Order: sequence, then C-alpha cells, then structure tokens
Amino acid sequence: MKRNVLIIGAGGVAQVVAHKCAQNNDVLGDLHIASRTVAKCQAILDSVHEKGAMKQPGVFKAHALDAMDSAAVAQLIRDTGARIVINVGSPFVNMTVLQACIDTGAAYMDTAIHEDPAKICETPPWYGNYEWKRREACEKAGVTAILGIGFDPGVVNAYARLAADDYMDTVTSIDIVDINAGSHGRWFSTNFDPEINFREFTGTVYSWQNGAWQTNTMFEVGREWDLPVVGKQKAYMTGHDEVHSLAANYPDADVRFWMGFGDHYINVFTVLKNLGLLSEQPVKTAEGLEVIPLKVVKAVLPDPSSLAPDYVGKTCIGDLVKGIKDGKEVEVFIYNVADHKDAYNEVGSQGISYTAGVPPVAAAMLIANGTWDIGTMVNVEELDPKPFLTLLDQIGLPTRVKDAAGDRPWNA
Amino acid sequence: MKRNVLIIGAGGVAQVVAHKCAQNNDVLGDLHIASRTVAKCQAILDSVHEKGAMKQPGVFKAHALDAMDSAAVAQLIRDTGARIVINVGSPFVNMTVLQACIDTGAAYMDTAIHEDPAKICETPPWYGNYEWKRREACEKAGVTAILGIGFDPGVVNAYARLAADDYMDTVTSIDIVDINAGSHGRWFSTNFDPEINFREFTGTVYSWQNGAWQTNTMFEVGREWDLPVVGKQKAYMTGHDEVHSLAANYPDADVRFWMGFGDHYINVFTVLKNLGLLSEQPVKTAEGLEVIPLKVVKAVLPDPSSLAPDYVGKTCIGDLVKGIKDGKEVEVFIYNVADHKDAYNEVGSQGISYTAGVPPVAAAMLIANGTWDIGTMVNVEELDPKPFLTLLDQIGLPTRVKDAAGDRPWNA
Repeated sequence: MKRNVLIIGAGGVAQVVAHKCAQNNDVLGDLHIASRTVAKCQAILDSVHEKGAMKQPGVFKAHALDAMDSAAVAQLIRDTGARIVINVGSPFVNMTVLQACIDTGAAYMDTAIHEDPAKICETPPWYGNYEWKRREACEKAGVTAILGIGFDPGVVNAYARLAADDYMDTVTSIDIVDINAGSHGRWFSTNFDPEINFREFTGTVYSWQNGAWQTNTMFEVGREWDLPVVGKQKAYMTGHDEVHSLAANYPDADVRFWMGFGDHYINVFTVLKNLGLLSEQPVKTAEGLEVIPLKVVKAVLPDPSSLAPDYVGKTCIGDLVKGIKDGKEVEVFIYNVADHKDAYNEVGSQGISYTAGVPPVAAAMLIANGTWDIGTMVNVEELDPKPFLTLLDQIGLPTRVKDAAGDRPWNA
Repeated sequence: MKRNVLIIGAGGVAQVVAHKCAQNNDVLGDLHIASRTVAKCQAILDSVHEKGAMKQPGVFKAHALDAMDSAAVAQLIRDTGARIVINVGSPFVNMTVLQACIDTGAAYMDTAIHEDPAKICETPPWYGNYEWKRREACEKAGVTAILGIGFDPGVVNAYARLAADDYMDTVTSIDIVDINAGSHGRWFSTNFDPEINFREFTGTVYSWQNGAWQTNTMFEVGREWDLPVVGKQKAYMTGHDEVHSLAANYPDADVRFWMGFGDHYINVFTVLKNLGLLSEQPVKTAEGLEVIPLKVVKAVLPDPSSLAPDYVGKTCIGDLVKGIKDGKEVEVFIYNVADHKDAYNEVGSQGISYTAGVPPVAAAMLIANGTWDIGTMVNVEELDPKPFLTLLDQIGLPTRVKDAAGDRPWNA
C-alpha cells in the first residue's frame, strides 16, 4: 500500500488537493506540499488548519522546490518518504517531476499535458510528444503514472469508458462538453492561470473525426447545448488533452471537446489574440526590454484564486457518448454539476479548481488501497472507472447519467 | 531673419517636417535632424533625397541626440547654427528642448503638450503645468516659442482666431472636430505612437463650459457630425491640448474637442483599458520582470509609419465656431480636408502625420521671414492667423469655410 503524498504546486487546484488530502489523511498518511514560493504553500496549510480539514492528527508540511530541477524533486520525494506525487504545478514541469517519480519509484499524477513554454499546440496526439515517450520507462520501473486525472481531462475519460463498457456495444462518438455557468463578478478574468488558459486557445483546434485528425481554428465551430441544471449554453470546439488519448483508445469513434464561452470572453480573447498580446514569443519594447506579451497579460489579470469568495453559480461537465447497442443507435450523457459557492465553503476555492482538484485525490486513495496501483503509465480511460466514480460520489463530485431512461445517479 | 532648422524626432511627423523643410530650404537654410536612433534620421534623409525634395542644393544632416539631455540639445543647436528648432520628438522631451532654445536663443516649436512619463492627464490648464512656467524666461531671452503648432493643436487654434476676428463680434462656443475617415487595412492600429495615442484617452476628459472646467470620462459624450467630404461621423468629447489654451484666451466661450472613433477602435481600447493594459504604471510578471503594460501594447502594435503605403481615404479637421454678429447668432465651420494617398505620394507619410507635420514648417518660414518672430512664448491663437493660413494654402493644407453663405476657400 502506497502512502504519503507530495503535492507539487500552490495554485487554486493545489489548494483543493491539499484540503481533500487532509480530509482523507487516514488513508493517505503524511502530506507534503511544495512549490517555488513556500509562502504560497504555507498559506494553503493555514487554510487547511483553519477549516480543521485534517481527518486525524498527522504531518502536513510545506517545502520550497524548483520543480524544473528533477534531481531536487527526487531528493524531496526521498526526504519526505512520499510514495504518491500529485503534480498540480505548471504544465511546464510535468516531465521533470515524472522523471523524479521514475527515479524514486513514487506514483505520479498530473491534471494537464506537458507543455514546452516556447511552443503552442504541437502535433497530435499531444501525449505522444512527451508523456508517452516515458511509458516504457514507467513500465520497467513499475511506476504507476496516471496522466491527466483532473476533471477534464480525467473524470471525463472515465465517463467515456463507463459509457463504452455499460451503455453500448460500439462507440461512434464522444463529445465532451464543459460549461461554466458561474459568475465571478469581475469585468474579465480567466478561471485558472491566464497563461495556461490562453495557450489552450491560441493554437490549432484538433478533433478526431472519421478516423483522422481534423483541424479548425478557435471559435470556428460552435453549437448550442441544452444541458441539465445550466440549461441552454453555447460551446465551441476546442483543442483539449483528452481528445488525444481517447482518439488512441477509441479510434473508431469521433472525439471532440466543446467548451462554453460567453460573447464577452470571446471578444476579449479576440482583441488580445489579434493584437499579438497572447503570444508566447518575446517582443522588444522601444526601450529595449524583452518581454513575453502573454506574461504581461497574466500580470494585469486578476489572480484566479482571488475570484473564489465572490463566485456564484454552477458548472456542468460531461460526455455525450453515442453508439450502437443491440443494433440500435443509443446515446447517454454522463455528467457532474458542481457549485462554486459550495466549493468555496468547503475548501476555499471556486468550482473550476474544485472539479480539477478532487479527482487526483480520489486516484491517490485508489493507488493507496491498491485498486489503481497498476505499475505503468496510463490515461484514465484505461482504468476501471467504477471504483473511481464511486469514490468521487462520496468525496464531492457525484456522477449522473441522462439517457432515454431518464436523469439519475449513475449507479442508481 | 532666423534660418537653419534643427528637427528633433524621427517618426512619421518628423518625416513630413523633413520633406517640407527640404521643399523650402531656400527660405530655411541649412537643415538638421536628430533623434536617439540616428539610423531613423538617415532613413528620413534617404527618403528626402529619393523624392528629390531639396528645393536647392544645401545641407541636410542627421545627428544622434538624447533630447532628454538639455545641454546636449543646446550643444547641437550651437554646433549646427540652428536658429529654429522644430521639436516633433516624444512629448516627454518638450521641456529639455525648450530650455536648450532659451539657453541658445533659438526659436522653439512643438506639436503636442509636454508630458511626464509617469503622469496621465494633469490638472487643467495643461499648459500651466510645464510650458507656461517658462513664458517669462522666453520673454526675457527674446526667444520665440510657439506651442502646439501641429494641426490640432495648431491650425485649429488659428481657425478659432480667424472665426473670432472675421466672422463674429463675440464667440460663444468653439467645437474642434477631428475625423479620420481613412482606412489603413490593418486589424487594428493607432495612427501615431500608440503610447501617446492611448495616453490621450485614459485620463479625465476636460472641457471648458459655462466658464469652468468640466470633467467627463472617455466615450461618455458622443454625437454624430455631418461634415464636408467625410459625411456623417460619430465623434466623442476628448481631452486635448488646444482646449487648455483656447479656454484661457476665450474664457467666455465654451471650448470642446471631439474626435471620431469607430466602434472597433472603442472596443479594442475598452478591452485594453479595462484589463489594465494601457497603464503607464509598471506591473511585475510571475517571473519578477517589471514592465509597463502600455509599452508592451506599443511593442505589439503596427509601427504607425508602416501604415502609410496602404492608407486610403480622407481626414476632415475643423472648428465649428458659434457667436454673435450684429446681435444675431452666427456659426462658421472652418476646416481642412487631407488625403492619405496624396500625402504618401508627396512625402511618404500618411495623412495624420501630414496634417501635423506641415504646419510647423509653415511657422518656421514665418519665423524666418520675421512675420511670426515675436520673441516670446505664445499659443497659436495669439498670432495673426492670416499669413499662416495663406502659406498653408500654398504648401499642402488648404483651408475652407462653410457657413450660411456656402462652402468655399477661406480667402475666396
């Protein structure tokens, strides 16, 4: 049984991971959190203690760490005795943290694909550029590495697997829809790190359709969805991590990702993008200062973690999966609805961070009890979804299904 | 008779000034141009020679100069024997250049008010914060200093004076309207230095109405104008230099400035402003780099001088002046229409630069022939407008009037 967890990162998602680990420290053992700025880790620990989140008395320590330095990460893993690493730092550190896990035998998890700061939107499948190249090394070292185990990617991959296993014989399409119908009350803000948020949308939109990669531009393809609780919402086909693994695991199905955007977001994004302010390539000011425009945009925008206290409304994220069952066309929508205010009251973060931060803790618990400790690298749809969804029901992210038979809890 | 001209600056307006000085070097004598980057001066000289703009063989030399260094400016004035300095550099250098003129006895001109880089939109009247404090020093030294002698401020001040002198007994209102109905074909660009352009619109909108300073916010007050040639255009009340001198010279009149903006400009401006990207105050990136957002916006936008080859359409800038004549209400619109393509063909710059760059050359010629060599500091409405407008008719900026008697050349 693996125990002792090291959380890497100190943003809004890390805050949720920390609270949820604390709430389950009877299963997870000693807890550690590390980031470049130790004061941010300490602030998270303070919030954990304020809420009395620790289920039982135990260790929860903050550490300063440069996660780009793989040897330093490995040393911290050894020093803390961590057997599970939850990497919710910047997506630029995935490979150095993964290597440290391979070197020390600790289990690895992340919630977003690795990115090279200087490149946007690489060749599909994205996982093939970095993570999957280390699959054999994980296998050889017997290291469990679960890629992309936030909500999307993560829970939505498990939803696809559940649909394929239980609702149909053949899957013909998987449409993942992510709607945030909440309101933060600011003139404009991204819901997580603006740099990462905008990077998602400045590149090519890859989808897997008719057995091949298809390309579109951002906001080129939009449609209105009518979803439980949040109602009618416009969403746009967007490039997203999970398309790149689901396409490999369900190559005969069309796989698309749709994200909801209001006209205001699209307008701000369009202005910034067309002016060149979302570029990850440096420009030089008239005074000769070299600066990356996207980092300046990030600097002027609200810190996403500051939104939580005022955030109201709900998110709805789910998979519309279509297929053939007993020769007939069937479809099912498997989804979760989360509430921003509830999230804030429980863990001090808004709903977007909450949906991303709870799943890796459920996964850590499944690794700790052996259920998911598979000793190799996987994407989430390669794991049995049922123990995961069962646990998520219990710790804050209940799953529902809606199909011809009605709208109900998934395991009703 | 003062001769020999030193041009300070090497942007789009400086290019026009250089060409126009060359075209009139029989009156103006030796010509010199100086800026921080001597290569930009050299490029302007190359364009002057390509067009064969020099009226007669003569001196035209480029110099490197830090115009923030008043002693260096004075030294260059002495070295070149310049007796007229046309300052079309950044508005941050007005005071150092003016001081150099006072120290050397050279005549001084600029086209925009002095600005402190760290301050936006100071207390009205703006001229009172810097320029007018040196009026006595100019008087004592017998130095001719003509403030704000571009088009607006500049020609529009002369239009106001002409209206007051010839068209009415009492002036009740002066509305200056600046419409650029041209198109540069880019997704977005400012027509001159973006930093200066945006700084104009991020502060309080000051107007002089009912004998007092009134304040509004940008884009708060808009109205549609129906103007000669360019037709119906929406313009917004804007803070602008000339309001601050005209209000002092015509305190019983209402003085307002209106600038035309399309919805697209307003949208881009609003997004950038609301996000904080137009701020002149530094922010710190996550990596710890201190950077002024406005300077990054400037760095990503097109260089305004690059717009000239593709610019088509016309500008219309004029004064609607209302007053009382023989006990009756009268009004006159005194204006100029300029064409972007014509400007480019003649001097290699677009129309906005052309309208700003021709007037100081006319003023230099009037100083050289003694007409305007008044040996003290003035705003343009304090000078006899007729020789100025007569000369402008001849060198590219003809003036027309429209009133109850019709639409005709001003001196028809």
